Amino acid sequence: MDVFDAISKRASVREYKEKSIEKALLEKLVDAGRRAPTARAVEPWEFVVVTDRGTLKKLGQIANTGSFIKDAGCCIAVYCKETKYYLEDGVAATENILIQAAGLGLGACWVAGDKKPYTEEVSLLLGVPPEMKLISLLSLGWPKDEPMQKKNRSLKDVMHWEKF
Amino acid sequence: MDVFDAISKRASVREYKEKSIEKALLEKLVDAGRRAPTARAVEPWEFVVVTDRGTLKKLGQIANTGSFIKDAGCCIAVYCKETKYYLEDGVAATENILIQAAGLGLGACWVAGDKKPYTEEVSLLLGVPPEMKLISLLSLGWPKDEPMQKKNRSLKDVMHWEKF
Repeated sequence: MDVFDAISKRASVREYKEKSIEKALLEKLVDAGRRAPTARAVEPWEFVVVTDRGTLKKLGQIANTGSFIKDAGCCIAVYCKETKYYLEDGVAATENILIQAAGLGLGACWVAGDKKPYTEEVSLLLGVPPEMKLISLLSLGWPKDEPMQKKNRSLKDVMHWEKF
Repeated sequence: MDVFDAISKRASVREYKEKSIEKALLEKLVDAGRRAPTARAVEPWEFVVVTDRGTLKKLGQIANTGSFIKDAGCCIAVYCKETKYYLEDGVAATENILIQAAGLGLGACWVAGDKKPYTEEVSLLLGVPPEMKLISLLSLGWPKDEPMQKKNRSLKDVMHWEKF
């Protein structure tokens, strides 16, 4: 899919079909993630790809804003080593995965990680060392319905030429 | 360009041809930026698109890690209102612009904004209210050479199945 189409089609999708996601596609998603820009060439990211139904159910319980993870085909937990720009790097990787998912026709929803009280419990469940920072939990699946993209702010509203 | 190709081709490009970037392409970049995901549907972003040579030169002087902005065809300054997830939202918009730029054959380099001592001076130059947070300065231009993508960490190294 064309890059602008994928960027435009990306939307939060929280309802999925009961169809699993092939391993090759999951690898493509993480491959997109690891190609993100990284400050000082650190590449601080790690990606935990969860497809086990029991673990997905537990993630949906732990992450209170991501209860729909329980029905997802997969959840990718994006982690970073704590560096000065860990959040920038981890979010860039997160966004790469989301755009690539849209390009493959997958639905996805970004569930917040950083600054959330449940990060410790998620790390414990996934066996991630406590010093790693959880950036995001990406719930993924084949969308039940056509995703709806809602944006209120127009290009004219957000774009400023030369000065604010 | 296909979305995975654009993600793969994106690399830091700091040397540009003396050719300007058409207005329609700059609008497409910001249009990609504003389509990023945003926590709680706030859409806190503003994009200042600088093409004036004098301002580009000043930006290159102020941002010590982005001296090459002086020779860029354009610099997009990504700002966000200060919300709980301003950095996540602003970085997602930043990454959308970078991927879209790669998709158009443009070269780009992400110069850090958040946490940098020069943010105040940049905001003053661009007439941005001091309460707005500078996320990134995106230096853009037609690449002088073929961009080189260097990634040391392989897919196998960063991808973990089910557990870390």
